Order: sequence, then structure tokens, then C-alpha cells
Amino acid sequence: MNGYLDYNATTPLCQAAAEAWQAASADHWHNASSLYREGAAVNRLLEEAQMELADFLGAEEPDRVIFNSGATEANNAVLTHFARTHSGKVAISAVEHPSVAESARGLLGDRVDELPVSREGVLDLDRLRNYLEREQDVALVSLMAANNECGVIQLWREALALCQEFEVPFHCDAAQWIGKLPSEGLGDCDYVTGSAHKFGGPKGTGFLLIPEDLDRFRSLLGGPQQERRRAGTENYPAVAGMMAAWRSLEPRLSECRRLGEEHRSWAESTLEQRLPGIQFVGAGAERLWNTTMFIVPAHDNRRWLTRLNRRGIAVSTGSACSSGRENPSRVLQATGYDFSSMGRTIRVSAGWDTTMEDWQALVEALVDVHAELEERH
Amino acid sequence: MNGYLDYNATTPLCQAAAEAWQAASADHWHNASSLYREGAAVNRLLEEAQMELADFLGAEEPDRVIFNSGATEANNAVLTHFARTHSGKVAISAVEHPSVAESARGLLGDRVDELPVSREGVLDLDRLRNYLEREQDVALVSLMAANNECGVIQLWREALALCQEFEVPFHCDAAQWIGKLPSEGLGDCDYVTGSAHKFGGPKGTGFLLIPEDLDRFRSLLGGPQQERRRAGTENYPAVAGMMAAWRSLEPRLSECRRLGEEHRSWAESTLEQRLPGIQFVGAGAERLWNTTMFIVPAHDNRRWLTRLNRRGIAVSTGSACSSGRENPSRVLQATGYDFSSMGRTIRVSAGWDTTMEDWQALVEALVDVHAELEERH
Repeated sequence: MNGYLDYNATTPLCQAAAEAWQAASADHWHNASSLYREGAAVNRLLEEAQMELADFLGAEEPDRVIFNSGATEANNAVLTHFARTHSGKVAISAVEHPSVAESARGLLGDRVDELPVSREGVLDLDRLRNYLEREQDVALVSLMAANNECGVIQLWREALALCQEFEVPFHCDAAQWIGKLPSEGLGDCDYVTGSAHKFGGPKGTGFLLIPEDLDRFRSLLGGPQQERRRAGTENYPAVAGMMAAWRSLEPRLSECRRLGEEHRSWAESTLEQRLPGIQFVGAGAERLWNTTMFIVPAHDNRRWLTRLNRRGIAVSTGSACSSGRENPSRVLQATGYDFSSMGRTIRVSAGWDTTMEDWQALVEALVDVHAELEERH
Repeated sequence: MNGYLDYNATTPLCQAAAEAWQAASADHWHNASSLYREGAAVNRLLEEAQMELADFLGAEEPDRVIFNSGATEANNAVLTHFARTHSGKVAISAVEHPSVAESARGLLGDRVDELPVSREGVLDLDRLRNYLEREQDVALVSLMAANNECGVIQLWREALALCQEFEVPFHCDAAQWIGKLPSEGLGDCDYVTGSAHKFGGPKGTGFLLIPEDLDRFRSLLGGPQQERRRAGTENYPAVAGMMAAWRSLEPRLSECRRLGEEHRSWAESTLEQRLPGIQFVGAGAERLWNTTMFIVPAHDNRRWLTRLNRRGIAVSTGSACSSGRENPSRVLQATGYDFSSMGRTIRVSAGWDTTMEDWQALVEALVDVHAELEERH
């Protein structure tokens, strides 16, 4: 049994990524800016990685890819760019990851508009259309592809089309989408965020896709690397690891999806019977195949987590960033759940190799913990 | 023979760092913010790494350590912090790394004062004292510990004492110092920048030391990680690699220094005889034991590099960031060399295991290339 069911928080490094990282660290650790052969070889490998990445996203222009330290940096970079170079408003959905929501508010203040979502957590496209019709000066719309907490999928393709109609740049934080659903088409967005450690790649690496010919884009300042758009010695071993992980998953996605949805569906219907009163968040909408978030009928979620952990199961209270700290679930806040529900939320997020047995063990453990907590009550 | 002599650009991953990274990737890849045991274990390991790092620097308070993606991020974060929260001036030396100089100018514009250096590339302390006496509103002084191009060591301890006298915060970019000279004492600076890949650690990781109780410090926004001072899932495997590399070098430093200075001294005096007209930059000042930068008597440095590379030797034209791109040497600009010298600069930077034989091979190759270029001329 593999009780790790918190893949939306982070994933173990997959074998392909570990091997690629080690091989690159052994053979291609040189500075890509260096003039000697070995440096030029790293530079070429980085260019090849840009090409492969752009290809995965269906983007024409590999130069649009900037490698960086991950999704948090990517999202901060996008919002910093708009804070510095645009005066218009930035619209984000009410369920964006804190690295979008907090950096938007921190960097743009009252220039940020938060667009409400449905009870299922989905951005309403009519609301977006109304907003774009009403507001004259919108610099950017930022909408995640899939939500980190409840796994709800946003209608990003439709939102992108709307933004194109109104000629407003569109940013898609695809950190939870990539590696779980096919990436093709994301390259149509003006800006795309991705993070390697969410799909079996190394931590501390990710990318940002920016519009073609956006020469003035600057994230970290200080050197000619990546066409001055992100200074700092390129971390090719991590890029090699990220691409290896991505390459190994992309062909498996439809099968993972089919199985994942089957397993989750079984788990949710079983839990509905065995834990009366349980509520599944966003279950009426399309969701990532690996994620279910629910509100347990009673008792603080931290008590559940401790007891589940003793049974070898690792899940979260919502998002890994907020569990155990002060942040309550953004999704529950945005979708109108009451405060007490927030303290009873559990997020389960499976991996590519999670089996029916793992889901069964989870269900048994939940039922078991529930009985234990009721007894003590 | 090991012909790689460009350690100031980047270093190969050392064995200890590779093993630490792999072990952490296998056992401690969990999200440090997670509530289950495995997450808490990573959190504890990160705290232990903060303690060890603070101890290396002689800093009392481990909480001062923020882990990040490296020196470029650290330097950008310091200058962004001062741009956002202070209105005073920021003084930097004329030979700072571009990640200080360009981010200062990009973020603070005309609030940046560049303090001139001597012909040897050393910041003049009397100039600094005059500046601090004259300027009423200095928010920060930023001075590197050792220069990336010519290896010249700045009088950062004395500059720090002066800044303390005038109650001005002091930032020290120690990216080239750490791992080459003892780190003890750097913790007295208010801000310190370090980068793992400059001393055998993994790429894409480093740290910034900030003042104690600077709660409002923010670099990346978006999550409660690292007390909200740098959002984003912590990259513990890379931190483990960085600390392993550092730990393995610190006891070797005095021996490396003794040998390195001996080898370099032999190389420089031999080259003076065999390549008449060669000029060594900053050779009159104290320098890092591994670095020599010189101006060859004739011919474009790129022609030298290509020919040296054919002989198995990898050196640089100045800094790795600028070689082959548009940036001419900052040090040569600041120290008053003429434009033609800039095109004839070669930087050699040895490693901890570079031998006398490696230095001899370098000297022979330089003499050989010189003869070849003269012949063709």
C-alpha cells in the first residue's frame, strides 16, 4: 500500500527525472554562457528543452519559454511585469493560488479585481464577459487551469477566447494541470506557469511562457541569460529532470485519467454511504482525475490527519501551503462554505501509480478514524 | 590533467552534494508545510540547515536565513526590498556583479550611487567614509566580498564597521567568497548573499541572510513558507546538497589557499617571463587564491579561448555572464583600462583540486597559443 495521497502538494522525484538530473550534473554542469565547447553544449541542450517544452504546450516559438525556480516565481514575475509596465487593472479568479492572489494584491493593490466563482468553484464566463465589456482598461486576466485544492478545472480555453476577443492578455497558471492532463493548447495563452515538482520533476524548477517578442520582459535582473528576461546561471540539470518527468507522463495521461476517475468515483460513493453527511467540494464540476476534497461530518481536520498519518496515510487539510498555518481554504471561502466547514476539510490527491488498493485503504482508514473520533467524543 | 579552470563561473557538483541531494530526493522530498510526519521531518531538516548555515557565517539567529534559487535572486530581493520600503539612496561599488548593479539601476534608478574603486579594483574606505558623511539619507551600502572577475577581495569587514558607525545597513554579496575563504564573520553583515553552485553545490539554490526581526521582508509573495519572506515549496534536496558541499570544503580552505596561492604565483611569474607584456589585473591587492585575470599582449580573447579549448582548457573572457555577449568586463571599465584591453582579457579560476600539473598545462597552452597566433598574424 502507498498511503501518500498528497500529490497536489508535491510529488516524489520520478526515476526518469532522477536519472536525467544525475546525468546532466555529471556531464552538463557547465555554465551555458561560457564560450568553450562544454558551455556551448549546455546552451544547445537548454534550447532543445525550450523546443520540447514549447512543443508540449503547442506553442510555435521556443523562445517564449523562460526557465525559472518554479510556479511561485513565475506567477510573481507575471504580476511584477504588469505592475511595472501597465497601468490597467488585473482580473484574477477568486480561487487562484496564493502565489497569484497574494502577489497580485501585494504588487498591484486596488488595481486587482477578483472575479467570483460558482458554488462548484468555476469562474462564470458570463461574469468574465460582463467584466471585460464594462472595464475599459484591463491589462491582464489570470485564471488557473485546475485548482490545487479541489481539483476543479476552469474553462481556460473559453476564457482565453473571450480575452482574445477583447484583446486582453491571458495568463494561465497551469501548475496543477501539467502532467495530469494533456498540455497541448496551453501555448495559445499569452502567459503560462508550470512547476516541475508537481509532476515528478525536481523541486526548485519550472517555467514561464511569455508572449513572442516581449523583449522588455524582465524577471530577475543582472545578466544576459535567457535573453536578459531571467538573469542567473541556468539550472540545466533541473531542466533536464523536469523534461524527463514530463516526457514520461504525457503518453500515460489518458489511461491515468480513466483509472483515476474510476477509483475516485468508487471512493466518493463509498464514503457517501459510510460517512453520512460528508460533502464533496466541486464534485458537480469537471475535476482533475486525481483530486477529491471533502468536508468530513465532524471533528477538526487536523485530528483526522494525525490519525490517518498513524495509519500510514498522508493527505492534506486543503492546500499544503495553508495546512497548519493561518490560511483557510481559498476555495471554501470563495464558494461560500461556512467557517466551520473550513476546519473540517480534507484534500486527497492521488498519483499516477496510485492503485485501487490505495484508494480502498484510504476509505477504510477514514471510516476507522471516524469511528475512533466518535468514540472519544 | 583537468583543464577546467573556470570555477568562478560554475563548479561541478561535488560527490558529497550529489549524495546528499539524491538521499534527500529519495527520503525527504515531501512538502515541508504538510502536517503529516514526513512533511514535519523536512521542516525540521530545513531548520537544521538554517542553524548550520548561520553557524558557518557566525550569525546568532538561524531565522535570518532564507533559502532561495541563488545569488541572482538574493541580490534582486535585497534591492527590491529597498526599492519598495525605503526612500534613501543605495550605494554600490563600481565592481559589483551585474545582479547587484543592474538590479540596483533597474529598480532604484537615480537613487543608486556607484562608489569608485582603485586601479586594483578595491573600494577605497576613505571614499566610503566621505560618502557616508556627505549623504544624509543612505538606505543601504552593497559591497561584494570578492570579485568574480579578477578575484580581488574587498575590505568588507572594514566597510561593515563604517556602515555600523553611520547606522547604515550593509549588504555583502559573498557568492565568490563562500567555499573559498572562511565564512565566519559574514553573519555580522545585515544582508549576505550566497550561491551553492559556486562551491560544488547544486545549481538553482542559494540563500539570503537578512537582519533579525525583519518581519516585513518579502521576496516571492504567495504562501506562508519561510515565514512569508519567500513563498514557494522549499527545495530541501538542493539545500541538503548545498550544505554538504559547504561542510566538505570549510575544513580544507586554509590548505587550498596555501597551495592555490603557491601555484598561481608560479604561473603568474612564469607567464610574465614567457608572454612579455602580459598584465595581471588586481594583482597588487589581496585576491582569492584561485583566480587570476590578465590581459594578453595581443589578439582577441575569443581567439585565445577557442585555441585553449582545443587543448582541453576551459577559461573565460571575464565573467561567464558576460563572455560572448555584449557585456564588457565591469572590473576593467571601473579600473580604467582602455577599451582594447577589454577584448584581451582572460580569467582563470581554479578549483579545490586543481594541481600544479594543471597550472603547468595552462601555462604551456597559453605560450603555445600565443606562438600560434603570432605565426598566423
